[in-house]
Amino acid sequence: MSDATFERHARNDVKRLPSRGQYDRETIYQILDDGFLCHVGFSTDNQPFVIPVAYGRKDDTIYLHGSIKSRLMQLGQANTPLCITVTHVDGLVLARSAFHSSLNYRSVVLFGQAEEVTDSEEKTDALHRITNQILRGRWEEVRELKASEIMATSVLKMRIEDASAKIRTGGPKDDKEDYALPIWAGVVPMHTQYGAPEPDPLRQGDYALPESVENLMKS
Amino acid sequence: MSDATFERHARNDVKRLPSRGQYDRETIYQILDDGFLCHVGFSTDNQPFVIPVAYGRKDDTIYLHGSIKSRLMQLGQANTPLCITVTHVDGLVLARSAFHSSLNYRSVVLFGQAEEVTDSEEKTDALHRITNQILRGRWEEVRELKASEIMATSVLKMRIEDASAKIRTGGPKDDKEDYALPIWAGVVPMHTQYGAPEPDPLRQGDYALPESVENLMKS
Repeated sequence: MSDATFERHARNDVKRLPSRGQYDRETIYQILDDGFLCHVGFSTDNQPFVIPVAYGRKDDTIYLHGSIKSRLMQLGQANTPLCITVTHVDGLVLARSAFHSSLNYRSVVLFGQAEEVTDSEEKTDALHRITNQILRGRWEEVRELKASEIMATSVLKMRIEDASAKIRTGGPKDDKEDYALPIWAGVVPMHTQYGAPEPDPLRQGDYALPESVENLMKS
Repeated sequence: MSDATFERHARNDVKRLPSRGQYDRETIYQILDDGFLCHVGFSTDNQPFVIPVAYGRKDDTIYLHGSIKSRLMQLGQANTPLCITVTHVDGLVLARSAFHSSLNYRSVVLFGQAEEVTDSEEKTDALHRITNQILRGRWEEVRELKASEIMATSVLKMRIEDASAKIRTGGPKDDKEDYALPIWAGVVPMHTQYGAPEPDPLRQGDYALPESVENLMKS
C-alpha cells in the first residue's frame, strides 16, 4: 500500500457499484479542490446532523470554521467522529427507462475525528485556506485579520483517516432491447455558472474588479 | 402553532445566526423543490455517514431510492434516525475583510426516521417523484417500469418530524470603518447551468429533444 492511495476499510469501501469507487489521493484531492462546500455529518446522543459548511485543505487535513456558538464547533473538544462529504453533479444521464437513468457526479466521503485548532498561527493559515478555497486569491485582497476576529472564530480540523471517491461519467447504459425505443436519450451536462458581479450598493468608491473575480469570470 | 410551520425543538432550532432561521412549510418546501440532490446522514455504531442521493417529496415525506445492497437502504428495517440536508449556494459574498466574507445560500435540514417502502404502488409513486424531481416530465417520456425493476430497487421514506431552513441573501456587511478601504466588495451570483444536451452515441435513431429537456433549456 503506497502513500498514493487510501487503504480500504469497512467504512470507506464503496459497496454499491464498486467499479465507481476510487481510493487514490490524487483523485480525492482533485474533487476536494474543485469545491468549497462540504456536508459534515456527526452524531450527538444518537441523533445525526448534517451541516453545510465551507472548507479548506492542507494535505490530508480538512479545515472548517464557524462561530464558537455553533453545534459543529463544539465537537472539537470531544474528538467526535465526523464524516465529510463533497459532491459535484456534472450532468443528468437520461436513459430510455427510469431504472437506468442516473447522474454524472464526482463525490468524496472522508472519515476522521474533529479536533479543535487553538494555535493562532494554524488558525490563521486555516482561514487563509478556506477563504481562498472559495475564491482563489481573495485572502490577499482583503484587509488583514484582527486578533479579535481570530479569537471569535472557531476552527476545527479533521485529519483524513479513511477516504473514498465515487465517480460516474459517460452516457446512459440501457437494456439491450430498449435501444430500439423511439425515446431521446443522452446527457445534459451541468456546471456552476458565475453571474455578473454586483458591486456593494453601500460602496464609498468605485473600484475595478479585483484579480480574484476577474479570474473567476474567465474560468 | 399552525400547520404552516414546523415546531421548534432542540434539534432543529437554528442556533448560529438565528435571524437566518425559518420554520414555515412554504419556505422549506420551496428549497426542497428547487433541488434534487440531498445529503443523508445516519450513524451506525457511532460512525457517522453522509451520502449524496437523489430525492423526491410528497407533502412531509421525503423518498430516497437505491440498491438493496447499499448501506443507506439497509436502514429502513431499523427505523434509523436520519438527517437530510439540501443546500443551494446562490453567490459569493465578498466583503472587505475575510471575517465578514460569506456565501448566499438556502439550506434545509430535516429530521426523521428511515422507513422501508414495501408497497409496490407507493414504491412506483416514489420513483415517479424522484425521476421528475431530477427532470420534470421525464417519467412520462421513458418506458414503463418493469415489475422486476421495482423489486430490485429499494425505496426509503422519511416523514419530516422536525425541519428548519436557513437563508442568507444580499450584500456584504462590513465593519463600519472598513467601508472606507479601497477594496472591491459585492456579490458574485452563482447558479446551476445546463449545457447543450449530448445525444447518446449508441442511439439507433435521431429523435428530437424531448419536452422535458426543452423546458430545462428554457428555464
